[in-house]
Amino acid sequence: MNKAIFCVAGCLFVTLAVAAGQAADDGPQYTADGQLLFPKDYREWVFLSSGLGMTYGPAGAAASEAPRFDNVFVNRSAYKSFLASGRWPDKTIFILEVRKSQSEGSINRGGHFQTSTAAVEAHVKDEKRFAGHWAFFGFGEGKPSGKLIPTSASCYSCHQDHGAVDTTFVQFYPTLIDVAKKKQTMR
Amino acid sequence: MNKAIFCVAGCLFVTLAVAAGQAADDGPQYTADGQLLFPKDYREWVFLSSGLGMTYGPAGAAASEAPRFDNVFVNRSAYKSFLASGRWPDKTIFILEVRKSQSEGSINRGGHFQTSTAAVEAHVKDEKRFAGHWAFFGFGEGKPSGKLIPTSASCYSCHQDHGAVDTTFVQFYPTLIDVAKKKQTMR
Repeated sequence: MNKAIFCVAGCLFVTLAVAAGQAADDGPQYTADGQLLFPKDYREWVFLSSGLGMTYGPAGAAASEAPRFDNVFVNRSAYKSFLASGRWPDKTIFILEVRKSQSEGSINRGGHFQTSTAAVEAHVKDEKRFAGHWAFFGFGEGKPSGKLIPTSASCYSCHQDHGAVDTTFVQFYPTLIDVAKKKQTMR
Repeated sequence: MNKAIFCVAGCLFVTLAVAAGQAADDGPQYTADGQLLFPKDYREWVFLSSGLGMTYGPAGAAASEAPRFDNVFVNRSAYKSFLASGRWPDKTIFILEVRKSQSEGSINRGGHFQTSTAAVEAHVKDEKRFAGHWAFFGFGEGKPSGKLIPTSASCYSCHQDHGAVDTTFVQFYPTLIDVAKKKQTMR
């Protein structure tokens, strides 16, 4: 009988651990010198939106180039938490992926589709680690970790001044706007 | 002792079911009259790419309107399978989400960002159900299921003639092109 109870407890533990695993394993990881480990699986995170040639943001295209797409992804645990609360939990990670665009290719003759990656940046919420709770990191191409962007950079003040929810641009993420309005977390 | 064995078996079953759940539960579901149930969680599937104002595809913008974005998502089990094989497994579902665009809003003054949904369609591989293995469905706004698009529609012939992998437009999904080339499944 004790064995059975132990096993039930074990069963419950394993089940909960598996269920919780998705929520707990996708937070930020750092190198010993404070760089952010590149989240290799970010393309399997939740897509929030994409823009083309938007006038804010890093790594804009040169005037002679085709405009660039920016795709935004967020880790799955943070997304689930936002749906429930309208707030970003500690350990939220956004990935901004900037991609070059092309107009003519295959059967397409107009508009723009996405091609190679131009830049990848992260916006991370880690309340104990960063004085302002959030920090930005830039990843060099193919690098296993990314450097902290100094807090003097314009991304910090711009997100602080214009982010609709907790320094993030929820106003540009169409499926989250209604969540934030409903939860009254949108400023 | 029998209880313990039963519990171990139960424990294993639950654990495996949870682990496998992600892979097995995201395939197509139909109504009794053959409509495709709307996959409510498709925004949590894997994003493949986004285009703006591309010259093919349904629900294009009128000449007087801003161009439209098309976001493509695929169910997670099919994505994992494609990464491993370069092929789409049976029960693959693509969702094409067409969204309106806007240029001026919040701090943005140029380019385009995404706003409300204009159309949602699905491209489904179900080998036993469809003579050509694949079929298209269109969802009315807010409808719980979508109608089969007749095989005489141009989407079938266009995907058949121009899809790079198994009638799908992998040539427009930048992270999958290399997978298909490596696995030699790209035509």
